[in-house]
Amino acid sequence: MRGAAIIGVGTTPVTAGSGRSLTELFVDAAKQAIDDAGVDKIDSIYVGNMMSGFLQNQEHLGALMATALGKEGVPTYKVEGACASGGVATNAAVKGLLSGLEDLVLVGAVEKMSGYTTPEVTAGLMMAEDRVKVASTGVTFVGLNAMIAREYMHRYDVSHEALAEFPVLCHQNALDNPKAQFRKKISVQDVLQSPLVADPLRLLDCSGIGDGAAALLIAPLAVAKKYTDSPVEIAASSVSSDTLSLYQRPEITAFEASKRASDRAYKIVGITPEDVDLLEVHDAFSILGIMALEDLGFAAKGSGAELLEEGECSRDARLPTNTFGGLKARGHPVGASGAYQVAELALQLKNNAGKCQVSGAEIGLAQSVGGIGSTVAVHILRRMD
Amino acid sequence: MRGAAIIGVGTTPVTAGSGRSLTELFVDAAKQAIDDAGVDKIDSIYVGNMMSGFLQNQEHLGALMATALGKEGVPTYKVEGACASGGVATNAAVKGLLSGLEDLVLVGAVEKMSGYTTPEVTAGLMMAEDRVKVASTGVTFVGLNAMIAREYMHRYDVSHEALAEFPVLCHQNALDNPKAQFRKKISVQDVLQSPLVADPLRLLDCSGIGDGAAALLIAPLAVAKKYTDSPVEIAASSVSSDTLSLYQRPEITAFEASKRASDRAYKIVGITPEDVDLLEVHDAFSILGIMALEDLGFAAKGSGAELLEEGECSRDARLPTNTFGGLKARGHPVGASGAYQVAELALQLKNNAGKCQVSGAEIGLAQSVGGIGSTVAVHILRRMD
Repeated sequence: MRGAAIIGVGTTPVTAGSGRSLTELFVDAAKQAIDDAGVDKIDSIYVGNMMSGFLQNQEHLGALMATALGKEGVPTYKVEGACASGGVATNAAVKGLLSGLEDLVLVGAVEKMSGYTTPEVTAGLMMAEDRVKVASTGVTFVGLNAMIAREYMHRYDVSHEALAEFPVLCHQNALDNPKAQFRKKISVQDVLQSPLVADPLRLLDCSGIGDGAAALLIAPLAVAKKYTDSPVEIAASSVSSDTLSLYQRPEITAFEASKRASDRAYKIVGITPEDVDLLEVHDAFSILGIMALEDLGFAAKGSGAELLEEGECSRDARLPTNTFGGLKARGHPVGASGAYQVAELALQLKNNAGKCQVSGAEIGLAQSVGGIGSTVAVHILRRMD
Repeated sequence: MRGAAIIGVGTTPVTAGSGRSLTELFVDAAKQAIDDAGVDKIDSIYVGNMMSGFLQNQEHLGALMATALGKEGVPTYKVEGACASGGVATNAAVKGLLSGLEDLVLVGAVEKMSGYTTPEVTAGLMMAEDRVKVASTGVTFVGLNAMIAREYMHRYDVSHEALAEFPVLCHQNALDNPKAQFRKKISVQDVLQSPLVADPLRLLDCSGIGDGAAALLIAPLAVAKKYTDSPVEIAASSVSSDTLSLYQRPEITAFEASKRASDRAYKIVGITPEDVDLLEVHDAFSILGIMALEDLGFAAKGSGAELLEEGECSRDARLPTNTFGGLKARGHPVGASGAYQVAELALQLKNNAGKCQVSGAEIGLAQSVGGIGSTVAVHILRRMD
């Protein structure tokens, strides 16, 4: 089978109140990726997005974005997988390339969440859950994650202080990312003293509302060096799913879809978690960042937070995690975040991460979660020598 | 490259006021396809849909449908391309199979349009157009198609009577399809005397509002006969796009995306239009059915209606077209229609089309249109001996 490599990367700053349309955001990121790769022609466009039908009353993003880019004529797709839309669209784009039908594939993921009321955005996010059986009860995504956090803290005797290490790390990393939404150092005490949103989760446990887009240009592995001196191999691209809702699962403190998607990705590449040098996880809420470390195989169940307490996830340590600030501090424009993660891994492996740069990383993994662990996309990227 | 074949097919009746949820519709069609193929395991699920975010406030259809089918765990995707969503999702599913990452691929496309007011559905359909520059003017899709019809009739001196032959043909064919929404014979005079919707288009020039789902199970060509005695080869699957809006095009009486998608499909298979025995075209409005005959290479520009006037598109003639009733009479649950077309071609080529059966067809082509010709999916299916 042919392989795939990233030859171009683009991201917009994540901001609330950008005043920019979906199209403007997408085109900004896509043009950066196209310019970065130095290509004129592209063969297809995959657009990742979750909420445009609900918030912007706009679908058909494939043709809309192709037109805005002046690339009409190519095959176009909107791919949706809730908050994992960016990761799932990247996976669909990789499959387009692996099919042999397309060579130069653009994937761009975009979400515009600001400019609406919080209830509107909250209702939009609940489209990731079953409208009839779950969303209709009035529960929110913060509420669902709060239930998980409560159960996790009780079961494994983990303190809120321990969970709060995750947003603290992310805010630290975002200080060096000029495109991050929240560039402000915070402490564990800041998290614990921030306003309560859904007990036990507080404001600084939660990612915010923002606008943003991220794009990748993907080419066949064998020809990637024609376009750039530093392509990055997509060594594995894997998607898995689970039951849509928590009430359908025997266990809520781990996400089987994360385990399945990462196990498959490790197997494709022929590595184990020990071989991963760099990590991007879906920390929409602090509990999810901690659980991801466990589900992906970096810590035993209930001990994810210890990695952070021991400093293992800092940029200069063994497993640099969310090095641009993650969902919490870079920002979480939901349908775009999965593509931001892959873009940021690629920037690191190209030694193009600016002040966020880590040294010596060869292999990076990104995990993107849709719904309450119902869809998970995992990508493993590898530096090419 | 490995090839793909259809080993299972399922469709629901198209009805308005079904009282069935998106999930119930999808599961009905998907289970038929799975049972038809006789498989237990599937490797991935692609869901085609256009309007669920807007009308049902429901996204994440991939995990929702996987859960409802008891198939959670597999990779899942929602793929959207406006009214071509079913065709585009089928294309994405074929690429998933061709990538070598998946063997048994389920594609199901679903739309629930009834139970809402006509203005709600009309606003939902306009999500296929540019919200900022076109939808905001108040124009509807019937209005856009009426502009094309007016220009076409004037330019090529074609009468409304000639265009009306298309819905007359579709209603005739639907008489024999127990799953069709409109099983009622109509005449050219009925079309011309039906209420005006957007001049010159009248009620019987337009497809209706309906609920429905269609599903296909796809397997590698080389092993398809393990599952069924009568698999149908997907000889080509092709998507093209055009500028999103009519004002961006020099010519509105032909769809370049239809030409590009079909030209590419013919080239992949190594055939010309003369080799096609069976046709499904996107007749959401009578003008579109006529234009499709031209854009796909079956008639010269301005002369598409002559094929119908000469009886060439009837089920017992040279080029049987929309043999189950097409969008006009089988029904047009928008995001599902592209999958209905492919399913109906497959039923014909399997000799399993019931009273709609044509004889001797070897090669069929389906064309699905999203927006005002902005996205077009073309599939060419071939009987396997």
